[in-house]
Amino acid sequence: MSIKRRDIVAGAAALATGAGVVGALRPKGTGGNAPNRSDTLSAPNLSQNRKQFRMATSWPKDFPGLGQMPNRFAEAMKLMSDGRIEVKVYAAGELVGATECFDATSTGAAHMYHAAEYYWQGKSHGFSFFTAIPMGMTAAEIMGWVDFGGGQKLWDELSAKFNIKAFQAGNTGHQTGGWFRKKMETLDDFKGLRMRMPGLGGEIIRELGGTAVTLPGGEIYQALQSGSIDATEWVGPWNDLALGFYREAPYYYAPGFHEPGASLSLGVNLDVWNGLSLSDQNMIRFSCKAANDQSIGEYTYKNAQALEELKTRYGIEPQFFTTEILKRVGEISDSVVDDFGSSDELTRRIADSYFKTRNQMRYWTEMSDGRFIAAREAALGK
Amino acid sequence: MSIKRRDIVAGAAALATGAGVVGALRPKGTGGNAPNRSDTLSAPNLSQNRKQFRMATSWPKDFPGLGQMPNRFAEAMKLMSDGRIEVKVYAAGELVGATECFDATSTGAAHMYHAAEYYWQGKSHGFSFFTAIPMGMTAAEIMGWVDFGGGQKLWDELSAKFNIKAFQAGNTGHQTGGWFRKKMETLDDFKGLRMRMPGLGGEIIRELGGTAVTLPGGEIYQALQSGSIDATEWVGPWNDLALGFYREAPYYYAPGFHEPGASLSLGVNLDVWNGLSLSDQNMIRFSCKAANDQSIGEYTYKNAQALEELKTRYGIEPQFFTTEILKRVGEISDSVVDDFGSSDELTRRIADSYFKTRNQMRYWTEMSDGRFIAAREAALGK
Repeated sequence: MSIKRRDIVAGAAALATGAGVVGALRPKGTGGNAPNRSDTLSAPNLSQNRKQFRMATSWPKDFPGLGQMPNRFAEAMKLMSDGRIEVKVYAAGELVGATECFDATSTGAAHMYHAAEYYWQGKSHGFSFFTAIPMGMTAAEIMGWVDFGGGQKLWDELSAKFNIKAFQAGNTGHQTGGWFRKKMETLDDFKGLRMRMPGLGGEIIRELGGTAVTLPGGEIYQALQSGSIDATEWVGPWNDLALGFYREAPYYYAPGFHEPGASLSLGVNLDVWNGLSLSDQNMIRFSCKAANDQSIGEYTYKNAQALEELKTRYGIEPQFFTTEILKRVGEISDSVVDDFGSSDELTRRIADSYFKTRNQMRYWTEMSDGRFIAAREAALGK
Repeated sequence: MSIKRRDIVAGAAALATGAGVVGALRPKGTGGNAPNRSDTLSAPNLSQNRKQFRMATSWPKDFPGLGQMPNRFAEAMKLMSDGRIEVKVYAAGELVGATECFDATSTGAAHMYHAAEYYWQGKSHGFSFFTAIPMGMTAAEIMGWVDFGGGQKLWDELSAKFNIKAFQAGNTGHQTGGWFRKKMETLDDFKGLRMRMPGLGGEIIRELGGTAVTLPGGEIYQALQSGSIDATEWVGPWNDLALGFYREAPYYYAPGFHEPGASLSLGVNLDVWNGLSLSDQNMIRFSCKAANDQSIGEYTYKNAQALEELKTRYGIEPQFFTTEILKRVGEISDSVVDDFGSSDELTRRIADSYFKTRNQMRYWTEMSDGRFIAAREAALGK
């Protein structure tokens, strides 16, 4: 998964032309609970504590799954506050470009963003650990690390450097290995392979002798069709089916190794955050948790439905990477991520905490969910 | 897992002697938003919409995990409402007994309960499907079924018969197979085995030729020590370590088959629910989701820590049931649960929806989390 910089130019234009609106936001550092001026200040249910937040996101409008997470957050805030708090969700390109929402929130041009932290790895490698790492944590594991294993404290330290306070606010669950034009039977099959795979997953493809290509979601299908790439990953059956990759690259491989449970994030401008009442801060915090909870159920349910459709309607029979391939990927992954985690002192601490916790968790996860899932499938058959 | 009827007598006494307090609650059916009278009505932050809810639970006071879920719900409600809504959490036996909280909520003696729905299987077998079923859904799967696959609608229909509206509000994740005094290598080893295993899991033990015993958590250790039982299940490493089973029955078997992701529930008296404002209803709904989210992270993290302690400090090396045993358990489970689900028309609809969704989900879960967890362990080793 990766939404790339397709909207930056349009976004920058929106930011520039929206200066009048943006300028009406409370200046950085003033704090306080003053209502924000905006077009809708004349709405009838205006009250003293009424708040309007502008949220920039990395997602196309109402995008299934990813785009529903900020919508659900906004709905929870509105419903729980009896309409007092309104969060206006902007799709990528509406306020700023897909990957500009972090900077917009940092400076105060937006109050909040919903995105994936690894989009900011150019600012610090540490951010990537709060989304997903190849052969890293599953959804349940990263929830455990962030909330109970010290992850949130490290994340707060990192985000504060950019005037942001961020929370987990959605998870795609496991992302599938990808769509290939041919069978992938040995490590040799990766040599010369041109695969759309961004970020650290792309580094693994390069180490295996392939070429990693970065493309936004909307350009992948055409690249497959034209032959400029041989394979692609995206999210999972639900989002993948919608883009029709099965028509060009019908070998659908599992498991994915690059994003075992991609966590999405909601970041708040730190001055805005510090100026909120304790109850409004907590409404944000718990609405993030609720959105996270819902996303896990939704991706599990919708991916299962889409997989059934891929199988029964389009004849796609999932393929499985061999143990030889997966073992090699595992070795490479930990080495690549360890290097990546050495870029600076704080990133090193984040990486060390992440690895220590993952290594502690993976044995429990294997003997519990891992063994159960295998046993259930063995017992109940296809 | 199962908290049994140890507190019923004490609970009934508390209910009787608490009649003056209970009588002050709004009578069933009156609805409305009138503040509830109670001892703390004179608290300084009293306001027109101030609410006090009395929540009966099935858990010992502040019990790790299970007892934290209602506490976290109460904390979220208090923090988000700026202290306007107070939920007083009663441990088992404080207001009513562990398994009396459903009836207390149904009649209005309590406003809410936090418990596990399968405790009410004596009222309707349908309730069990909203906690856990042998060889049934994992935590992520039951979240998907309830929120997106029609489960909540069926649950609402069932609960309404008892004047209750219920939500998912916590999940223990996978529960371990249990502690045994001897190695369990073949199906014959279950013949004559006396194992503490309540509910539908117990039915499986009986079908395998053993004797299923029901005991409350606080009595299990002594039963193991005295030899009156040969084996027990409880929850997972975190809760199990605290009770010291490893000293008497050191063979710790995985995976569990009886509760693959036990969902806990929060039920609200339906008249109380219908009398609440939309915003207060939603604060309850989203606080349940937040508590659910936190519990998954907490159990994952704490179970992993406890497992490491069991291994390194107490020399416990987890054992694994053979495929032969697990296949037989799988066959028996679906047959036992299918019979169990035929008790009445609504239960049949619940069971059919559950099985249909589980069968759709299990293939996706296996090719995603299942295959990934196995690959990661194969790649990274012990």
